[in-house]
Amino acid sequence: MRALLYDTVIVRHGPETGVKSAVTRARYDRLLLKNMEAKVRSAGLSLEKVDRRFGRIYVKTDTPSEVARCLSRVFGISSTSPAASCRADLDSIAETAVKLTEKRGGQDVRFAVRCRRVGSHNFTSMDVCRYVGSRILDSMGPMGWRVDLEEPDCTIGVEVRDQDAFVYTEVIKGVGGFPLGSQGSLLCLLSSGIDSPVASWLVMKRGCTVTLLHLDLGDLGSEDAFDSVVGIARVLNEWSPAFEVRLLAISFGEIVLKEVVEKCPSKIRCVLCKRMMLRIAERVAIRRGLLGIVTGDSIGEQASQTLGNMAVIGEAAKGLPIYRPLIGFDKPETERIAREIGTYDISARSSVACKAAPSKPTVRARLEEVAKWEKSLDVYQLLEKALASLVEVSL
Amino acid sequence: MRALLYDTVIVRHGPETGVKSAVTRARYDRLLLKNMEAKVRSAGLSLEKVDRRFGRIYVKTDTPSEVARCLSRVFGISSTSPAASCRADLDSIAETAVKLTEKRGGQDVRFAVRCRRVGSHNFTSMDVCRYVGSRILDSMGPMGWRVDLEEPDCTIGVEVRDQDAFVYTEVIKGVGGFPLGSQGSLLCLLSSGIDSPVASWLVMKRGCTVTLLHLDLGDLGSEDAFDSVVGIARVLNEWSPAFEVRLLAISFGEIVLKEVVEKCPSKIRCVLCKRMMLRIAERVAIRRGLLGIVTGDSIGEQASQTLGNMAVIGEAAKGLPIYRPLIGFDKPETERIAREIGTYDISARSSVACKAAPSKPTVRARLEEVAKWEKSLDVYQLLEKALASLVEVSL
Repeated sequence: MRALLYDTVIVRHGPETGVKSAVTRARYDRLLLKNMEAKVRSAGLSLEKVDRRFGRIYVKTDTPSEVARCLSRVFGISSTSPAASCRADLDSIAETAVKLTEKRGGQDVRFAVRCRRVGSHNFTSMDVCRYVGSRILDSMGPMGWRVDLEEPDCTIGVEVRDQDAFVYTEVIKGVGGFPLGSQGSLLCLLSSGIDSPVASWLVMKRGCTVTLLHLDLGDLGSEDAFDSVVGIARVLNEWSPAFEVRLLAISFGEIVLKEVVEKCPSKIRCVLCKRMMLRIAERVAIRRGLLGIVTGDSIGEQASQTLGNMAVIGEAAKGLPIYRPLIGFDKPETERIAREIGTYDISARSSVACKAAPSKPTVRARLEEVAKWEKSLDVYQLLEKALASLVEVSL
Repeated sequence: MRALLYDTVIVRHGPETGVKSAVTRARYDRLLLKNMEAKVRSAGLSLEKVDRRFGRIYVKTDTPSEVARCLSRVFGISSTSPAASCRADLDSIAETAVKLTEKRGGQDVRFAVRCRRVGSHNFTSMDVCRYVGSRILDSMGPMGWRVDLEEPDCTIGVEVRDQDAFVYTEVIKGVGGFPLGSQGSLLCLLSSGIDSPVASWLVMKRGCTVTLLHLDLGDLGSEDAFDSVVGIARVLNEWSPAFEVRLLAISFGEIVLKEVVEKCPSKIRCVLCKRMMLRIAERVAIRRGLLGIVTGDSIGEQASQTLGNMAVIGEAAKGLPIYRPLIGFDKPETERIAREIGTYDISARSSVACKAAPSKPTVRARLEEVAKWEKSLDVYQLLEKALASLVEVSL
């Protein structure tokens, strides 16, 4: 019954695309369609026909409810609705709306009709609301349906676009952001913890394709860390339907961190470790033409994330911007997003403890001291060795 | 009646303080209390007595409901509850709970009792729940009250701490974060727009005190911009009860931007302008011992916020970290926070348009070209002149 009535998915663009120039909008739409098609295909569904209009994409499909839900998780879409299409005349619209409400059913339902109209017609949006409302009352009034524009239980939406009209009752919230691929590429440092996957996802949401770099701690990390990272990368890859997420791994614990542990004081170990991580990330990013580095840093969450330490750590990689999307987040906010995007369970199962972490790391490293100890390391050679260990992990 | 019953406010710490060391927690608590006292005082209220326990602060006051609401807007607090205190024995707790429910009143209320207990007692938390529940049923059962642990309309919370117990029915969500002053100081670039106040607030939420720097566009900006900035700074200052927010202003339009407009191509004007802004911010921050620069950048929101342009802009100020708390935010998310914190209306009223903004700014500036044009400006002298125009605006 549902399949007979719904034949379309209304796709509403992300909130910020409307203000872009026509050229930019066209480019974003091409990318959005590419992502939509890949996403739907990967879910075993299909789009039959796609109709681009200003601020909307109307998609014909055999499985509108499934496709609407699937597309709500594509970046660049603010919401979707499975809808029934009809001709843009009052009677066709009313008939369609009545069928939808009959299908919905229910006693004593307070309802409202809302209409948006684009094009030239011999009726106004208000006419649509009034006429459709009265026809629904004729049909459903005996079951106790009544109009309530303030707090309806059921909202019947009508979009009239030139010769076409679309009627819907459900609005599925989308993830928003910009179409993936519209904003260039970034390198994201990825561990098996809760934060870095969320940081990566947030820049993806803003349209960036990503290359993930895992600096593997080897024996100094937990046994399951690597598997968790691969699992997380696969989840992020599902969010990137038309652009493959790449996962790179470097044998960091074995090559770099062990040296740091051996030669330098434990107090500044974490700062030295993170400086080396950023140096490696910077080199990988520059070699691959990536435009910045993304970390999961949040002010004060860990000893290495005090303002003082972040300044000393960031000083090691000044060639590219460092983006820290979680810098102002509380942990519960990060956890909420991790749950929504599907990485939380993998991170929560994984033990992220670094065996090299000292019990009393400094919260106020001094650059001069750090630089002095780095002289006892052969930083350049460590970097070369670490970079030589780089492998791409297939997802 | 309420005043007779409630005599305490339960203050629950922010979500991340529990994992800190005892020394750090004590330092955070001192700062939290300092902010709490200043906040309450500025609202014309007062705290009579303060009792610090692990994970909680119990505040005695004459006006518990008002103080609870006031404190929910202090950073470092995850929630508050006005509460009635009593001795930690079953009968006292039950009596207090019954009085609270009688005061609440209502027919057919589904209720639940929840208890947290710390200390040694001759009863368990479960005993409290059962006994208090049965006493409430005795009293309120005739009005249709019944137990519903799944979806209660009314939850009676009991906290037992050693000899004291606290009973409450309301939990007011706090803003979370770390106590202001616990994380060092940052310089925040502030315009009259919607984004930069939210970016500033987010780092304040994470415990940073802030100095705000407004680069005034003068004739090239809108007339009301400066007043709006002062209004916004005052709102942010209310969020910083124990540490005065400082607002600095520099005559940027007159001294710097006019030069850029005159001497350089319009296409790269915004990039040149933002580079000069960052250079000034960096110098001000370093002179004042501030540990980083905060901007309202969000990927792709404006032409100057493409990844390529942000890299070229950031290149001008490599001496300090640049924090961009909104980097992964969609505009509606930023607007929601702006509304919550009270800056939205001021920003929305203000016209932020820069009269120097070209119709076709580049989205892909090249560093070599930018550097070439900067040679035609006397960057050093412009900076000196701009810095000489710095004034502190009293709030």
